[in-house]
Amino acid sequence: MKIAIYGYGNLGRGVECAIRQNDDMELFGVFTRRDPASLKTLTGAPVYASDSIEQYKEEIDLVIICGGSATDLPKMTPRLAETFNVIDSFDTHANIPAHYAAVDAAAAKSGHIALISAGWDPGLFSLNRLYASSILPDGADYTFWGRGVSQGHSDAVRRIDGVKDARQYTVPVPAALDKVRSGSMPTLSTREKHTRECFVVAEDGADKAAIETAIKTMPNYFSDYDTTVTFITQEEMQKNHAALPHGGFVIRTGKTGLNGEHTHTIEYSLKLDSNPEFTASVLVACARALYKMKARGDSGCKTVFDLAPADLSPKSRDEIIAKML
Amino acid sequence: MKIAIYGYGNLGRGVECAIRQNDDMELFGVFTRRDPASLKTLTGAPVYASDSIEQYKEEIDLVIICGGSATDLPKMTPRLAETFNVIDSFDTHANIPAHYAAVDAAAAKSGHIALISAGWDPGLFSLNRLYASSILPDGADYTFWGRGVSQGHSDAVRRIDGVKDARQYTVPVPAALDKVRSGSMPTLSTREKHTRECFVVAEDGADKAAIETAIKTMPNYFSDYDTTVTFITQEEMQKNHAALPHGGFVIRTGKTGLNGEHTHTIEYSLKLDSNPEFTASVLVACARALYKMKARGDSGCKTVFDLAPADLSPKSRDEIIAKML
Repeated sequence: MKIAIYGYGNLGRGVECAIRQNDDMELFGVFTRRDPASLKTLTGAPVYASDSIEQYKEEIDLVIICGGSATDLPKMTPRLAETFNVIDSFDTHANIPAHYAAVDAAAAKSGHIALISAGWDPGLFSLNRLYASSILPDGADYTFWGRGVSQGHSDAVRRIDGVKDARQYTVPVPAALDKVRSGSMPTLSTREKHTRECFVVAEDGADKAAIETAIKTMPNYFSDYDTTVTFITQEEMQKNHAALPHGGFVIRTGKTGLNGEHTHTIEYSLKLDSNPEFTASVLVACARALYKMKARGDSGCKTVFDLAPADLSPKSRDEIIAKML
Repeated sequence: MKIAIYGYGNLGRGVECAIRQNDDMELFGVFTRRDPASLKTLTGAPVYASDSIEQYKEEIDLVIICGGSATDLPKMTPRLAETFNVIDSFDTHANIPAHYAAVDAAAAKSGHIALISAGWDPGLFSLNRLYASSILPDGADYTFWGRGVSQGHSDAVRRIDGVKDARQYTVPVPAALDKVRSGSMPTLSTREKHTRECFVVAEDGADKAAIETAIKTMPNYFSDYDTTVTFITQEEMQKNHAALPHGGFVIRTGKTGLNGEHTHTIEYSLKLDSNPEFTASVLVACARALYKMKARGDSGCKTVFDLAPADLSPKSRDEIIAKML
């Protein structure tokens, strides 16, 4: 199967690397809004102008759209689904139903297949919430994120006056994790679940106390959390905070038995050196599943909930039954 | 949907309890090889003779077969698939392809749908091996079991001369878990991964040293492990070892990036107070999925790899997309 990458940031580069790890896939090329001549890909894959993609429609089996959820994907995914089979990693949870409806309308009309919101959350974490709640209906589930870099929160700090650069880590509170794992099904406030650590490079002469106050009192982003602010140099930022690690936990505890006398804990966790590369790896496995579904005549918008696990694997069904079941 | 339970041991009782936790299901009754008049169910569900089941074929949507993998299921599941939609928890990994073929032939011929090897291993652990290896092709996965009671190993100890009762716990070695989580992809011997703890009630006057030697040198079961043997009284056995806890870990680590420079860890773990009740909860969720697939016209033998996650949930697709994705 021939895959095109649409958008070439961290995620697009991750997809480029992930395709090389899968023998049944081939990278057609990268489509960018920048001047194609100015862009050099990691693997030397060819670069095309994004507005030229229609002319390659016979040569591309599937487009992995690597744009941002805020403004790019709501436009790009429905539009590209008119001509291509597409996958995105749309992650604004509250807007998923609207995005789904728009993509489904486009894909159903054109007869293509689409998958939205693939990745790890939404994605693998969603799958684990679904499996666990279906198996233990009398229970509660909890999602923790981190320790990892939140791009959105880092950007919010960078927009403060006097901030030159910033990196924000979301950190799960160990005591909250332990309480959840105990099976007591606690009610946890936002503050009890996560802390936020900010590393900030201030501009010369900036008022550091004012910056710290601006961060800690910022509504939605920080005011509901215990936040620490550490000022560092640009060199320290480059040396210690260049990577994009992330991860987290989905835990469900639930009761079974005649009178709920037995407690069970299902825990799923990820520890990722590179958030974009791992997300890209999920997208690429999902691309394989979508390609198989399309070959069977399926179309319209799908989510990870609709993908039969067998379709994600490059191995034959006989082989996975014999070796992995 | 109306479900029948075929076989009424620990697993059958677990299914009986699990059905009560799901509003979209109803227990038709329990089928047993024992005298139905002699058997009292936990919830007062009606009891029928196992050889009378054919006469209720119009009233039963699906049969959950709760027999043993060694001798019961290889006969029961193909035979019942001639008349019913069926699910079992066949767990002899090496014989799964043969069991699959037999059940698939019967179900395909009769137009029924069947699911074999549902539970947590095979089952949820298999799913996690499949998802993780599809996402991180350049990696290695590891399955650890326990701490939990192994019925097979407990039975093996009970068959030794002079043993009145026995309970065997399989225990993962913490150092091995840590080594795996580090991402170093170690090669681990059987002995390095698990230890075995035996609690034994000896008969009066039995030669305890001989029993201990017989256990520790038993091929396949114990000789490849570091095994501890502790003699206890029948009272201690009843007080401290009556439960059937189990659990375990599926961990995959893998590399991504242009030159494999980033490492990721995917970990799935279960901590179960009651192995049979949790297995039953998985079977019941799978029954729902199978029922939906049958309603869409599907038939033949399936595995957990073939079930779209959305089908496991009692919630509508719109609801899970809006709330769980």
